[in-house]
Amino acid sequence: MMLHHKVTTEAPIGIFDSGIGGLTVVKAVQAALPFERILYFGDTARVPYGPKSQVTIRKYAADDTAMLMRYQPKIIIVACNTVSALALDVVQKSCGVIPVTGVLRAGARLATEVTRNNRIGVIGTRATVSSNAYGIAINEFNSEIEVVSRACPLFVPLAEEGFIDHLATRLIAEEYLAEITREGIDTLVLGCTHYPILRKVIEEIVGPEIRIIDSAEAVALRTRELLEESGHLSSSLKVSAPHLLVSDLPQKFSMLYQLFMGSELPDVELVEV
Amino acid sequence: MMLHHKVTTEAPIGIFDSGIGGLTVVKAVQAALPFERILYFGDTARVPYGPKSQVTIRKYAADDTAMLMRYQPKIIIVACNTVSALALDVVQKSCGVIPVTGVLRAGARLATEVTRNNRIGVIGTRATVSSNAYGIAINEFNSEIEVVSRACPLFVPLAEEGFIDHLATRLIAEEYLAEITREGIDTLVLGCTHYPILRKVIEEIVGPEIRIIDSAEAVALRTRELLEESGHLSSSLKVSAPHLLVSDLPQKFSMLYQLFMGSELPDVELVEV
Repeated sequence: MMLHHKVTTEAPIGIFDSGIGGLTVVKAVQAALPFERILYFGDTARVPYGPKSQVTIRKYAADDTAMLMRYQPKIIIVACNTVSALALDVVQKSCGVIPVTGVLRAGARLATEVTRNNRIGVIGTRATVSSNAYGIAINEFNSEIEVVSRACPLFVPLAEEGFIDHLATRLIAEEYLAEITREGIDTLVLGCTHYPILRKVIEEIVGPEIRIIDSAEAVALRTRELLEESGHLSSSLKVSAPHLLVSDLPQKFSMLYQLFMGSELPDVELVEV
Repeated sequence: MMLHHKVTTEAPIGIFDSGIGGLTVVKAVQAALPFERILYFGDTARVPYGPKSQVTIRKYAADDTAMLMRYQPKIIIVACNTVSALALDVVQKSCGVIPVTGVLRAGARLATEVTRNNRIGVIGTRATVSSNAYGIAINEFNSEIEVVSRACPLFVPLAEEGFIDHLATRLIAEEYLAEITREGIDTLVLGCTHYPILRKVIEEIVGPEIRIIDSAEAVALRTRELLEESGHLSSSLKVSAPHLLVSDLPQKFSMLYQLFMGSELPDVELVEV
């Protein structure tokens, strides 16, 4: 409880991800909570986490949490599906009484609320899918639900390269989604922070009968609930740009920020992990 | 000169890369020098280097060289185009009198020997292309040569996902290569270690009039020359599997090894950088 006195309504919301993908979470949090200060750490020096081993991912999760804790956030959002899947306990242990919420549990929770036929599809990176973490989380909320999942490893590079409306992206998406859409699902979770960038092509392929759950939006709504419950919503009426920390300055960072956020890159602070 | 006495004919050839892409160099060196012992370090924990800043890349290059130097190699091959382009001097400084050769200079050299019309194309990652390192190296060999280059950032993920014969790959390759093949080049350098995996589709698109230079093959031939000149060719007649060091064990490492090498994964040693 020693950290409890530091949690103030004006403290920032801390968000971290392995790279820049978590900016979709920043955008969703801005939309849900426009008057909150946002502190974002992107571990751009060590991205991607997905293909790495669990030991390495858990070490990185502790580092990332420690980085945000320097700024005494009032809540920590794990925007990284890989960390949400494999190391949420590490984050929780590293930040004491500060509440922690992750994209994975928030997306899983919203999907269970939305499905009517209890058949949910999940797409994500190879690491997220092979961990079956969404399936486990969904079944913790409702053990009756059937979960089918599919790894879509090329979606991240296609999104980052801006191949949004490209025929090649459509062909790859059709191949990735063919089987899962034949499984009778009525809900599909975008289990990777990059996938909202490709939401349109995914929606066109799966059709209007399947409801898309964006984990970034889900975690933003969950964060609002948690801050409301604990009385920690900001009382400010000032809208501010997010404070960005990165462990490396990638060469196309500005272009990527624009792609994810639809706005100009604010000042960025380079930090060492 | 203090390290000179350690260079023996039976010492290994040290090869490093940011990840597993350099295995195409291992394969080419095995073909050119079947009786040499090969030590390969893949910095799989910190891959990819390409999008990172120059400061970070130079630090990693020093770490990678130090890792190989523990095994007293007789030559170091920089299989990473990014390090070849931005930090070859760091490698040279970190390894004393041991000769160093890199994919970039070797590929550039072979291309200048092959071109008849003095127009060379280069494809590579965004980092390699925007550094213009191939252009500079080619013009050091022959200042008359015109170099045109094009970044093909999706080729690495497509190769790693095994999208070798896929229509999506063909469409993306056509888009990437359309302009460069209209530039009147007679030689095209594959300036990224992953690209030999996609050689067939690249060759089909550029047509038989354009000669493909594989930097992995070029550096293997250059290594043989250097070892012949210095009298350090192995006198053994034993063929051995490469000794693999990696900084992380990625989940699909065995599949990727198979894809790059066409043989089963030998024992792998996990090391910390």
